[in-house]
Amino acid sequence: IVQTALSGALIGKGNHRHFMMKEIAEQPTVIGDTLQAFMNPLERRIQLPDLPVDLAGLSRLTIVACGTASLAGHVAKYWLESVARLPVELDVASEFRYRQAPMDPDGALMVISQSGETADTLAALRYAKSLGQKVLAVLNVPESTIGRESDVVLHTLAGPEIGVASTKAFTTQLVLLACFAIAVARARGVIDAAREAELSSALTELPARIAEVLNHDVHIREIALKVAEARDVLFLGRGTSYPIALEGALKLKEISYIHAEGYAAGEMKHGPIALIDENVPVIVVAPSDELFDKTFSNLQEVMARGGRVVFLSDADGIRKLGGQAMAAVELPRVDPFVAPILYTIPVQLLAYHAAVAKGTDVDQPRNLAKSVTVE
Amino acid sequence: IVQTALSGALIGKGNHRHFMMKEIAEQPTVIGDTLQAFMNPLERRIQLPDLPVDLAGLSRLTIVACGTASLAGHVAKYWLESVARLPVELDVASEFRYRQAPMDPDGALMVISQSGETADTLAALRYAKSLGQKVLAVLNVPESTIGRESDVVLHTLAGPEIGVASTKAFTTQLVLLACFAIAVARARGVIDAAREAELSSALTELPARIAEVLNHDVHIREIALKVAEARDVLFLGRGTSYPIALEGALKLKEISYIHAEGYAAGEMKHGPIALIDENVPVIVVAPSDELFDKTFSNLQEVMARGGRVVFLSDADGIRKLGGQAMAAVELPRVDPFVAPILYTIPVQLLAYHAAVAKGTDVDQPRNLAKSVTVE
Repeated sequence: IVQTALSGALIGKGNHRHFMMKEIAEQPTVIGDTLQAFMNPLERRIQLPDLPVDLAGLSRLTIVACGTASLAGHVAKYWLESVARLPVELDVASEFRYRQAPMDPDGALMVISQSGETADTLAALRYAKSLGQKVLAVLNVPESTIGRESDVVLHTLAGPEIGVASTKAFTTQLVLLACFAIAVARARGVIDAAREAELSSALTELPARIAEVLNHDVHIREIALKVAEARDVLFLGRGTSYPIALEGALKLKEISYIHAEGYAAGEMKHGPIALIDENVPVIVVAPSDELFDKTFSNLQEVMARGGRVVFLSDADGIRKLGGQAMAAVELPRVDPFVAPILYTIPVQLLAYHAAVAKGTDVDQPRNLAKSVTVE
Repeated sequence: IVQTALSGALIGKGNHRHFMMKEIAEQPTVIGDTLQAFMNPLERRIQLPDLPVDLAGLSRLTIVACGTASLAGHVAKYWLESVARLPVELDVASEFRYRQAPMDPDGALMVISQSGETADTLAALRYAKSLGQKVLAVLNVPESTIGRESDVVLHTLAGPEIGVASTKAFTTQLVLLACFAIAVARARGVIDAAREAELSSALTELPARIAEVLNHDVHIREIALKVAEARDVLFLGRGTSYPIALEGALKLKEISYIHAEGYAAGEMKHGPIALIDENVPVIVVAPSDELFDKTFSNLQEVMARGGRVVFLSDADGIRKLGGQAMAAVELPRVDPFVAPILYTIPVQLLAYHAAVAKGTDVDQPRNLAKSVTVE
């Protein structure tokens, strides 16, 4: 029997109506906790536990996970490839485990799971180990089956997550993966100390920036009431905002039963733009970064076809839009590196308030289980 | 000025109401034409043109495309990894071109495009060339910009495709990519002549098998009339049936404006199963292969939650189901290697007839262009 260190305060709902809202609100704290475990705040330098692989010599990282955790892996792929120049392959576990994927002998596997008990992810881990791969596991519950079978556990300090729809587990996974990407970049000599300090500072500021976004709760709730009337919703983004668009759609789908779908903004013209009319709200994730103008041009195509846009951006982006959207949420301006973490907050709040408006069982949505321990 | 060899018969609609239906019906012929160009039918042996890369020494293939063409690449990834043991990275061009992907010096790029003019795909090609990668292009129009800038063109012989929603271009891409996978497997010494002959035979029989499926047109139209009443539809599949589920959803979305979404069947439990109720038809792509039982168990979960299933399988699969589905289409039993090509036909017909029932402009769906020559 393993005793876990849960205090009563962590398991109650506090002042919140649902565990999900409590867990959304906890994010500044648990992200701070996770950062503290992986960063030296004075030197603004990342420090990881001893790893079973040589990060400098690694030829390739394969990231495997399910559901929301696989979207954390999706963001990590962008970070690791652009910041650390490490090639990353990403797959969902239920596909990876059966497709006899060849694996690079100088590569390694990373699995991501909140519970550490996800059946398909465990099977993927065992497949990779049978090919001699070392396994790094990003887990919220280290005393778990995946934890025991991995070579190292990188522990997200989200605390127990009760709501079926993952929120704080996802953002702490992202924070941990951001730290990992910086550490890999340093080991491979593609980042200098100044840039490391810059990225680390951007991470350190996140709890405060997230708290600012949580203060927009009333405004986001108003937008969610409009979104809740729709039967179909699209989420669009490019680069690291693309997995956040996917996560926004998944969250809305899980708890409000609205058919939401995420898309790479540049793929719109290859099919889904046919869906656009005044009944389908389009939520655009568009921080001011080097892809902003491209996403903005996709947004204009959507509006030209009668689409109603909910625009998530910062002051610069919203100024550029000039009041054409159905609604806009202004987020603080941050380093584009950490934007996917910050932009997760409004899509969580949108899904939460839309579900509450629809009267669904937010913490226990129909048909879903918290950890999927069967295939 | 380049003269193309178009005969009047190829540009008219013949006896068909729409170009799309004409192009669906042409598939036995154009698949036969494409096979003839890449296979010696007597020896049942694949023959490719001279390539700028050594297939035996290739460390990795990166496949980049947009829309439906990227789904052909998705199937090819499964084939190349499982049959030829060649690691493949797949990405949509609008993401790949901007994410500064590191590329393996011993790797190569493959682009897939019907028109050879797709703007994002062209930009991805130029990025890869700037890193010194050789480029193989799978094109239906070799005299195109992508054709001119590639190191070799592998030409699909689909003939001119007029309907905006791609049908015969997609299946000829698949046939060509299947031949390519076999050639790579031979070059890498992971397939013997007997297995090559077996896979080649399965390909050679495809035109006849597809003609059989086309004969189910009236039955598929009846099912499509029910699907056309839905506002939301899910498509599920595993392995090479997963990209076909994505293609079925994309096709339906493009021409009928029904919000259809494709999912890896094993990912259902991680979110989308919350959508399932009696108003959301679920189309399951499930040939008898080694993944059949897994997909079947996902199908039972869907039915247990009130979902109405349209089941695409062969006699064995349908016998196993025993009349529980809303509808079933029985396809000929084929080697699982070629199943994704065969199973494309019913999803095309479903989309076509649903769109006709809804009265949309099938050949010119709203908001879409045939080739996307802008970003």
